[in-house]
Amino acid sequence: MERITSLQNPRVKQLVRMRDRRPRDEAGAFLIEGYRQIRRALEKSIKLSELYFSSDWFLGENEPALIEQARAAGAQVVELSKDAFSKVAYRERPDGLLAVAPQWHNTLESLEPILNGKAAPFLLVVEAIEKPGNLGTILRSADAAGIDAVIVCDPVTDIFNPNVVRSSTGVLFSVPVVIAESQPVRAWLRERGIRAVATTPSATGLHYDADLRGPLAIIMGSEQYGLSDFWLAESDARVRIPMAGQADSLNVAMATIITLFEAVRQRR
Amino acid sequence: MERITSLQNPRVKQLVRMRDRRPRDEAGAFLIEGYRQIRRALEKSIKLSELYFSSDWFLGENEPALIEQARAAGAQVVELSKDAFSKVAYRERPDGLLAVAPQWHNTLESLEPILNGKAAPFLLVVEAIEKPGNLGTILRSADAAGIDAVIVCDPVTDIFNPNVVRSSTGVLFSVPVVIAESQPVRAWLRERGIRAVATTPSATGLHYDADLRGPLAIIMGSEQYGLSDFWLAESDARVRIPMAGQADSLNVAMATIITLFEAVRQRR
Repeated sequence: MERITSLQNPRVKQLVRMRDRRPRDEAGAFLIEGYRQIRRALEKSIKLSELYFSSDWFLGENEPALIEQARAAGAQVVELSKDAFSKVAYRERPDGLLAVAPQWHNTLESLEPILNGKAAPFLLVVEAIEKPGNLGTILRSADAAGIDAVIVCDPVTDIFNPNVVRSSTGVLFSVPVVIAESQPVRAWLRERGIRAVATTPSATGLHYDADLRGPLAIIMGSEQYGLSDFWLAESDARVRIPMAGQADSLNVAMATIITLFEAVRQRR
Repeated sequence: MERITSLQNPRVKQLVRMRDRRPRDEAGAFLIEGYRQIRRALEKSIKLSELYFSSDWFLGENEPALIEQARAAGAQVVELSKDAFSKVAYRERPDGLLAVAPQWHNTLESLEPILNGKAAPFLLVVEAIEKPGNLGTILRSADAAGIDAVIVCDPVTDIFNPNVVRSSTGVLFSVPVVIAESQPVRAWLRERGIRAVATTPSATGLHYDADLRGPLAIIMGSEQYGLSDFWLAESDARVRIPMAGQADSLNVAMATIITLFEAVRQRR
């Protein structure tokens, strides 16, 4: 087994670079840090290409078993010195485990086998979300609400950003996420007979009063700009969430979860 | 006007110390950083005792007007050098404004004038929330849902923690927040005829099916331990949120907003 102690080692440098999008995309890979996330990835059959560890940072007793599991599943295991691991870790409190996995790219077509046979697909479309933490929280909400797939239109934040991976608490590994442009997504929803319901503060009707049953896509806009004119014009219905307090009390992640769980109520 | 350049200045040191709870409590004061938060505080008539600024960090054009407004409202205005401000700022990207305001302490009794005359008070009780970011988000949800007051039982996180102030986006300045022990809160709710509905994964009934109209207190537990045995036993009803995905997809802030907005639906 390889052991790395030098902070100048090319692998160490590459792991640090992979926090940024371009090197990540060039490598076609992304980072998964920490015991819990890596365990989740293995549970969901994410293929880890590399697993870096430093026992000096371990917090528990189960790390060696997880390392063995990753190795058995085909990961190259590399030991790092305490200092080298400190350099590659992006968390404030590292736990001595960092994996690299290949990126995947779902398409609208790849959703067909998932949606076929479903009488009422339940989808979430998010447009140009900026903050990785919001995107991760939105993925968690989608998972909790039983969404069949999340479609990210015109992405600003890469779903393989380390903060999306972390804040999704592993949901990224299980909920199908498609990256696509808005126009083909709109056409695809229409072809499949899926109603597009947009959430926007400018709507007159409340989300409570809209029919959220049947084949449904909830459409959410970006933090700063809300929904684009395209989605506002092209949606089948527009709804708003009633707001009692100051205008910005709900952020996009909060608005998403409110809308999704009203849909869950109606769809029971 | 005083101008501070030394990083060893006692005021500079005290501002840094006030990020921690004990010095904050000893001073009976707390920190409000950034243009937006300070503007919100002034809008809500929070009395600022001190306002520190460094024009080297300003991001816009409106800072001098805000400083004048604070001075007119009685704040002592102190200029800091760029380096000195860098030391006192707790944000990653400071904008050159940091205020100090006196803490306040609401009691159950102080809620009486707010609740008197309300046929159906709508309260949120949270128990031992640990993460400042969650508490701030919960305050935002409460504001959006039109909650009359938030009661924090057996607090672990101080509501004047800088991260609560920041993540509440100013809601801390407007929604009444009471800190109290669980037992007197339970007795007070009973005296006032306010039903206590607890959210817990162990409940059999869903929150959708519970009656959330009338005088109501929603009870939420802590991140790690959920609700205490006390609140589970003493609540008038227990409900759970349906969960389609992995067990931990909903955190306490997300569970709170889902429950509050189902109550909003029923109470329209």
